[in-house]
Amino acid sequence: MAAALTPHDLIAKHRPTLDQALESIRTRAYWSPHPEHPKAYGENGSLDMAAGKAAFDALLGTRVDLGQPGTDDWVGGEVSPYGLALNVEYPHADVDVLLPAMKAGQRAWRDAGAEIRAVVCLEILKRISDRTHEFAHAVMHTSGQAFMMAFQAGGPHAQDRGLEAVAYAYVEQVRTPDTAEWSKPQGKRDPLNLTKQFTPVPRGIALMIGCNTFPTWNGYPGLFASLATGNAVLVKPHPRAVLPLALTVQVAREVLAEAGFDPNLVALAAERPGEGIAKTLALRPEIRIIDYTGSTAFGDWLETNARQAQVYTEKAGVNTVLVESTDNYKGMLSNLAFSLSLYSGQMCTTPQNLLIPRDGIRTEDGPRSYDEVVADLARAVDGLLGDDARANALLGAIVNPDVKARLEAAAGLGEVALASREVTNPDFPDAVVRTPVIVKLDGAKPDDEAAYMSECFGPVSFAVAMDSAADAVELLRRTIREKGAMTVGAYTVDSEVEQAVQEVCLEEAAQLSLNLTGGVYVNQTAAFSDFHGSGGNPAANAALCDGAFVANRFRVVEVRREA
Amino acid sequence: MAAALTPHDLIAKHRPTLDQALESIRTRAYWSPHPEHPKAYGENGSLDMAAGKAAFDALLGTRVDLGQPGTDDWVGGEVSPYGLALNVEYPHADVDVLLPAMKAGQRAWRDAGAEIRAVVCLEILKRISDRTHEFAHAVMHTSGQAFMMAFQAGGPHAQDRGLEAVAYAYVEQVRTPDTAEWSKPQGKRDPLNLTKQFTPVPRGIALMIGCNTFPTWNGYPGLFASLATGNAVLVKPHPRAVLPLALTVQVAREVLAEAGFDPNLVALAAERPGEGIAKTLALRPEIRIIDYTGSTAFGDWLETNARQAQVYTEKAGVNTVLVESTDNYKGMLSNLAFSLSLYSGQMCTTPQNLLIPRDGIRTEDGPRSYDEVVADLARAVDGLLGDDARANALLGAIVNPDVKARLEAAAGLGEVALASREVTNPDFPDAVVRTPVIVKLDGAKPDDEAAYMSECFGPVSFAVAMDSAADAVELLRRTIREKGAMTVGAYTVDSEVEQAVQEVCLEEAAQLSLNLTGGVYVNQTAAFSDFHGSGGNPAANAALCDGAFVANRFRVVEVRREA
Repeated sequence: MAAALTPHDLIAKHRPTLDQALESIRTRAYWSPHPEHPKAYGENGSLDMAAGKAAFDALLGTRVDLGQPGTDDWVGGEVSPYGLALNVEYPHADVDVLLPAMKAGQRAWRDAGAEIRAVVCLEILKRISDRTHEFAHAVMHTSGQAFMMAFQAGGPHAQDRGLEAVAYAYVEQVRTPDTAEWSKPQGKRDPLNLTKQFTPVPRGIALMIGCNTFPTWNGYPGLFASLATGNAVLVKPHPRAVLPLALTVQVAREVLAEAGFDPNLVALAAERPGEGIAKTLALRPEIRIIDYTGSTAFGDWLETNARQAQVYTEKAGVNTVLVESTDNYKGMLSNLAFSLSLYSGQMCTTPQNLLIPRDGIRTEDGPRSYDEVVADLARAVDGLLGDDARANALLGAIVNPDVKARLEAAAGLGEVALASREVTNPDFPDAVVRTPVIVKLDGAKPDDEAAYMSECFGPVSFAVAMDSAADAVELLRRTIREKGAMTVGAYTVDSEVEQAVQEVCLEEAAQLSLNLTGGVYVNQTAAFSDFHGSGGNPAANAALCDGAFVANRFRVVEVRREA
Repeated sequence: MAAALTPHDLIAKHRPTLDQALESIRTRAYWSPHPEHPKAYGENGSLDMAAGKAAFDALLGTRVDLGQPGTDDWVGGEVSPYGLALNVEYPHADVDVLLPAMKAGQRAWRDAGAEIRAVVCLEILKRISDRTHEFAHAVMHTSGQAFMMAFQAGGPHAQDRGLEAVAYAYVEQVRTPDTAEWSKPQGKRDPLNLTKQFTPVPRGIALMIGCNTFPTWNGYPGLFASLATGNAVLVKPHPRAVLPLALTVQVAREVLAEAGFDPNLVALAAERPGEGIAKTLALRPEIRIIDYTGSTAFGDWLETNARQAQVYTEKAGVNTVLVESTDNYKGMLSNLAFSLSLYSGQMCTTPQNLLIPRDGIRTEDGPRSYDEVVADLARAVDGLLGDDARANALLGAIVNPDVKARLEAAAGLGEVALASREVTNPDFPDAVVRTPVIVKLDGAKPDDEAAYMSECFGPVSFAVAMDSAADAVELLRRTIREKGAMTVGAYTVDSEVEQAVQEVCLEEAAQLSLNLTGGVYVNQTAAFSDFHGSGGNPAANAALCDGAFVANRFRVVEVRREA
């Protein structure tokens, strides 16, 4: 088949976007080519709100046939956290057939070079972007995110992170020229002359293991970093969040084929309930790269056992916000209330421990006691979520029964400063919607330490009373060092405390947000500008996205000969 | 103490060199600031030949007191492969005292930033360069390299590799700006404005485990990559090759102190005989980076057990040269003869297996049978080493009894095409000097496979008779995949064979030299242009030097606040 998408056309179409991405990762100023507003879609081939919803509805009860080799069965069974059974089936692969098939197209993909690979990836992202409304429903009904969040985080923000990875991958590969003429002087004798060719070569097949809560956002960086560096990519979605990644694989296969490449360079590995296929795949010799987001236990298992692969993990962590003083008390409370509520705290970046001096804090209106701060924060959350419609729009649904169980158990860990309440979702009466709980703990009590030093993933936060700001800084250090942290927040107008917190974050390698009181939240990062995680503490061994995230996904092979 | 070396002066002095290094790693054209000719030294503060020898002689029988904290004993006992007992003593460290002391200066080193760190590293390299003649003797009398090789590979080439690592480290750290102003439009509302600071932060303490044969060449890349990215570096030399690295540490400590930094950022860990301190150090929680060159067994042990650290290893491999046809038979033979002889084949890059079709090869003067090719190569080696003075200058000394034992055993593995002979070194009668052995093996015989599929480090090569060029290409693939290879060579005028060899090297990630018949040898690579190893086959998990070699030695911490 003649390629419908020529290299020339793809470069003409996408090179300007790639160049802007390259510029953005250098300056780290704001930039995104993917609109955040739902109404921005509907023209130039993109689906508008109604068309996206219709496309999603049309998927329900169908079989997503990707045309993959080695399909030996059909599996499915996702039930939306909103109650809807998706009844979508996906191919189940005989990996002994699928993996060899994925290698067949690698040579052509390698020989295409970094630029062609980049623009093919950008075409994939563009087609996903055009279907953002459809993906939004797929993300919503697998992760339990509220629609607007599923739309933004699962759509443009995920696409941004994918594009960012493509940009990093591209620039890393072109740091070494394709060819070089090397001429070494030899005094009076003739110089030594060599012609050298340098080729970025892939590691092999990359395995991307998706997560339940952010299938696209957490999945795209690894997927696109591996693909753009010449690897084939096998996508192993979380069994509860297959659809968004199955659609992604479908788009990728379609674009690869149209561009004249083997569609099997990207494939899906859906699994039967309880099959645990990730473990099997992770140890296959063909798998040379693994990207994983999920539990510390399995992340550690991968790092220890998948020795044939480069392993990039994002695992559990305990995020801290240190509250010492503020000159915008209201702003602080509303900013924190939003952070605790968004997606029912089911983000790896949601603050868990709020460290507050037991003697209280200073504000622009005078001191507030520990109890007052906690009560004020509880009121702020209550206010934010008082209206059920707004609560539903912010909270989304509880993603799985484990989160619900943890939330219910949390009330027994200490004095409840803010009780969780059930919210009814009129559109989805089966959705489990809960407001966050805030529990008071004492930083000096060993019994309480077991609670605040463990990740309690979900809408649970602990207001931990500390003897002093210095103690809080020390606990922050210990928490990052022992448990890891994707994010740290701090509120202080004291430059010494600010310095101390900053120094801890520099020494323990954690990303710090200081005194956020407006419309940016500690749990949100923006591609091209913010790093997601640092890769330097136990919460993650990689950061999204930097040179280290891409540089070892390929190697450079040199062929030299006399000139 | 006021810093004798100001940042301003260091930048003025070294920034142009850094900029040239940055340009060279982009273009990969020939460049080096470190002269290769012994007579180039002696002016502008550098030691000439006589002064370098005198400086080395003055070291013999002395104690190298580095002024390190926690020195609890003095250890030594190096005996040169040339027979000379060095009688030099080095500090033995109480690591419970030394490691904490190495952390004390890390904050200031981190805060200095990437450029200051780079120019401090360049000052260290400059002072080492000035003492190249002294280092040459230290390398010669620990590695057993002949003087000229010790001078070049242990001097300017090692310094080039160190500088290259500094350049990669610098450019990696400045990919992200120090600060960014981020302004995200919000439609009709005010934009969201954040000020972001980005700081490269070190991993902690890096452990550089030196090797016997190339203490400086193999040690400098890791040492300088770690130091330039803000880490402290603990240098654990091979017990038989302490002196060159002890001098390196001494220079580094001196420069750090003069520049106002803590000299304990670089320290030496010499050990008692049989102490095996590398294993203990490698598992210390403070050690976050390890660079190692040596056996596969210990390299694998490090990768498996030192999980708290980033581990960069260069291990054993089996290097192949495929000989299929040539249009310069004489040039091929003399090039190969040199490669097999240089430093008695004690290089990780020396060819071991010469794969030759049993039906012979084509040359510009007609066909040559397998037997003729092997005999001609044996004659070429004999001719090259026929004169004892030249033989000594090329071969150096056998580095240790294990190599000698392997050489002696090799003669029993098959028909000896070229016997090893003893060469007397008139200057060093105790030196063990041996010419290489060439043994004929049959690629189709399972008994022979055990020999040619194992690394036989030293002056041993196997002329392996192959059924066909295609068989040779397949054996090449299997050898790289199963055993790893630092280098691959091939001689062919057949474009199909060339393509096939090239494809194997691209797929198995090995560095290929094609048809070398002049003054460049398969076992030599040049910094700023050639990669040493690929990091993509079992011989090494890293390449010298690329982005991946430096990018994970530091992390970037972001601090963001509302603008």
